[in-house]
Amino acid sequence: MPKRVKGGITAPKGFVAAGIHSGIKKTNQLDLALIVSEKPGPIAGVFTSNALPAAPVILDRLHLKKGIGQALIINSGNANAFTGSEGFADAKEMGRRVADQLKIPLNQVFVGSTGVIGVPLPMPALRSGIPLLMLRLRKAGYKEAARAIMTTDTRLKEIAVQHRIAGEIVTIGGIAKGSGMIHPDMATMLAYLTTDVAIDQKTLQKTLRTVANQSFNCISVDGETSTNDTVLCLANGLAGNTPICGSSSAQTQFQNLLHEACHFLAMEICRDGEGATKIIKIEISGATSHKAAKQFAKTLATSPLVKTAIFGADPNWGRIIAALGRAGLPLYPNRLIIAFNGLPIVKDGKGLGPRREQQIQTILRRSSFTISVSLGLGTGVSTIWTTDLTYDYIKINASYRS
Amino acid sequence: MPKRVKGGITAPKGFVAAGIHSGIKKTNQLDLALIVSEKPGPIAGVFTSNALPAAPVILDRLHLKKGIGQALIINSGNANAFTGSEGFADAKEMGRRVADQLKIPLNQVFVGSTGVIGVPLPMPALRSGIPLLMLRLRKAGYKEAARAIMTTDTRLKEIAVQHRIAGEIVTIGGIAKGSGMIHPDMATMLAYLTTDVAIDQKTLQKTLRTVANQSFNCISVDGETSTNDTVLCLANGLAGNTPICGSSSAQTQFQNLLHEACHFLAMEICRDGEGATKIIKIEISGATSHKAAKQFAKTLATSPLVKTAIFGADPNWGRIIAALGRAGLPLYPNRLIIAFNGLPIVKDGKGLGPRREQQIQTILRRSSFTISVSLGLGTGVSTIWTTDLTYDYIKINASYRS
Repeated sequence: MPKRVKGGITAPKGFVAAGIHSGIKKTNQLDLALIVSEKPGPIAGVFTSNALPAAPVILDRLHLKKGIGQALIINSGNANAFTGSEGFADAKEMGRRVADQLKIPLNQVFVGSTGVIGVPLPMPALRSGIPLLMLRLRKAGYKEAARAIMTTDTRLKEIAVQHRIAGEIVTIGGIAKGSGMIHPDMATMLAYLTTDVAIDQKTLQKTLRTVANQSFNCISVDGETSTNDTVLCLANGLAGNTPICGSSSAQTQFQNLLHEACHFLAMEICRDGEGATKIIKIEISGATSHKAAKQFAKTLATSPLVKTAIFGADPNWGRIIAALGRAGLPLYPNRLIIAFNGLPIVKDGKGLGPRREQQIQTILRRSSFTISVSLGLGTGVSTIWTTDLTYDYIKINASYRS
Repeated sequence: MPKRVKGGITAPKGFVAAGIHSGIKKTNQLDLALIVSEKPGPIAGVFTSNALPAAPVILDRLHLKKGIGQALIINSGNANAFTGSEGFADAKEMGRRVADQLKIPLNQVFVGSTGVIGVPLPMPALRSGIPLLMLRLRKAGYKEAARAIMTTDTRLKEIAVQHRIAGEIVTIGGIAKGSGMIHPDMATMLAYLTTDVAIDQKTLQKTLRTVANQSFNCISVDGETSTNDTVLCLANGLAGNTPICGSSSAQTQFQNLLHEACHFLAMEICRDGEGATKIIKIEISGATSHKAAKQFAKTLATSPLVKTAIFGADPNWGRIIAALGRAGLPLYPNRLIIAFNGLPIVKDGKGLGPRREQQIQTILRRSSFTISVSLGLGTGVSTIWTTDLTYDYIKINASYRS
C-alpha cells in the first residue's frame, strides 16, 4: 500500500519550491510559484482540449516535444489566455527569465497561468518577482508553492505518497488548483506532480495519460472546461531505482502510486467545487459501450435540475430519468435500475414508492454518496464525480472579477 | 402585418375551452384544461426528443397517425412520465373519458400532462373532473384553460393573432406552459395552438415543424429537455378560406402567422425562465455550417459561467471564449468577433480594453440584449434565446416537490 508522507511537491528527492506575492493579484495573496529539480529529467504533460488554449499551454506543448524538464513556473490571478501574440511572448519571457536565472535551456522550463482570461500578464510584477522567487527556493517551500497557484480555491490541495518500487523508495509529490469550470477532459485546473522515480519519458507520458483519464478527467463541477488546464509530471530519477521503461510490474506500481496522488488531488478539487456542499459519485453500468456510459454520466453530472435536487436533498428521481432520456441514446425504461448507495429507487419501469424515497432522502442529506444507474443494455461502464449546484455557485460566479 | 386580437386559445372560430381544479394539485390551483373544436379537423404535432417519453406523448404520437383531432385534454401537477404500462392505460382512460362525453373517436382526443415525474396519475380526480370540465366549456374559458396548464410558471402565456389569408380572416390562438427544463429541441414545455384555417394535415404538419424549429426549438433556460414536451396545432377549417395544400403564398402567410404566435409564446417561456432576470439573444454567424453554429450557440446558452456572469452584469468575455473553445469544434482566435448589441468587445484576437468593458457593462444591466459571435469560418448561422442563471433558479429547483 502506498504511504502518505509529508512534504507535498518537494517530498521527492531533489526538489525545491517557493511561492511569493509578486503583484499580479491586487490583494496581497501569493500569486507566483516555482518548483525546481536539482537535475533535469523526463517530463510528461496532459493539456486542455479547449480549442482556444492559453499561451502557456501552447508554449508547454512545444517544450514537451523535447520531453525534458527542470523547472515549473506558475502564476495565479491571470490566465494569459486569449492575449494574442503578445500573450505568447509574455509566456515565453516568463520561462526565459527562469531559464536564465537557473542557467538551463528555455525548453526545460514549463509555464502555467490561471485566473482571468483576456487581460495581458502584468510583466513588471513577473520581472521583479522571479529573482525574489529564486532566493526563496527551498525544501520547506512546498506549502507556499501550493498556495500561490490558488484562485477561487478555498483549500490548499497537496499530497505526497511513497512506495517501494524496483527495490527503492519512490516518492511522488503533487499540488493542484481548481474549483469552478471543472469538467471531464479537465477544466480550470492545474496539477503539478514531482517524482524521484527513474523512468523514460515515453513511459512517463503514457502512464500520466492513463492516470489523468481515470482521475482528473472523471470530475465535473459545472460542465465547463477552461483554456488553461494542465497536468505535468516531472521525474528526476534520484530515487535510484532501475529505470522503468515500458510495461513491467514496476511500471504498474508506479502507475498505482501516481493514481493515488492524482485521484486524491482530483477529489480535493471536486470537494472544493464552487459552492459545493456535496460530492456525488455517478456510476453508469450496462451501457452499450464505455463511450455511451460516459455520455450518460456526463449528462447526469451536468444536469442543473439533478444537481439542485441533490442540493435540496429532494429524492426527485424523475429528474434523473429526464436527464438520462435527453442524453441522445436509446433506453429501455423497464431495464433501468437507479440506486443511491446501492438502495434502488427505480426498478421494473417504476419508482419504488414514498417509503423508499424517505430512505433515499436520508442518504441525500449526507455530504457524499453514490448514484448508480444500470441501463441493462451491455457492458459499458463509466464513473464521474460531481457536486451539487448551490446558491454559493451563483454568488461566486456572478461577481468573480468585482 | 398580423394583428393581435383577444380571446387566446378560443379566438379562432368554433373553439371553446375550460379549466378547473380537479384535485391533482394539492393546492386549489387549476390543474385540468380542455379545448374542443365544434368540428374535427387536421392536427399537427411536434414532440420531445427525450428517449424516455411520457405516456401522453406515446399516446398522442399514435393518435397523430390518423392526423385528425377535435379535443385537447391537459393536466398539470403530474407528468404521467415513467409510470409504466399503468401510466399508458391512465393516459388512454383520460382520453377515452373525454371521447365518450363528446361522442367522438378516442384517437381524435389528444392528451397532455406536465408536472412531477414517476407518480401515478390520481385517476379519481380526473374521473370526477372531466364531466365538470365539460359543463364549463365555453368561449370565455380561454384564460382558465391557459392557467390550468401552468406548473412553476409565474405568468400565464397566451396569444391570438389574425391575418387575411386567401381572402378570409384566419385566426390562430395559442397557450403554452414552461419555465424550467427548457432547451433547444424543446423541454418541459407544452404549447397548444388552435386555428380556423382550412388546411390539409400534411401541410399543417410541415408548417408546424418548420415554425417549431424556429421558435420553441431556439430557446434554452437550463439545457434540460423533458419527457413531456408537446406542441400541437388543431385546425378546424371554419375560416372558410380556400383550403391550403402544399406550398403557396397562402401557406407562406399561414406559416408567418403561426410563427408570430409560436415566437411570442417561446419568448414568454424564456422570459418566465426559472429565476431569470434577463433574456439574451445569442447569434452565431460565420460557422462552417448551421449545425456547427447551433453547437456553439447551445454551448454558450448552457454555460453556467457565462449565465452567472450575465446575472452579475460582469463583462467577463473570457468566459464566452472558454465556452466557445470547449464546443468541440476548431476556432481561429484572430477571426473571432464578439459583440454585445452590436458593440464589439473582442476583435483581432484581443479584448478591446477596460473602457469598452464599461460600455458593455451598461448593456449587461439591461433586461434584454444580444450577444453576437462571428467566427469567420463560413456561412453557418444560428440563433438561440436564453436567460441568466440566478439564485432563484436554485431556490425554485432545490425544493420543487416539498
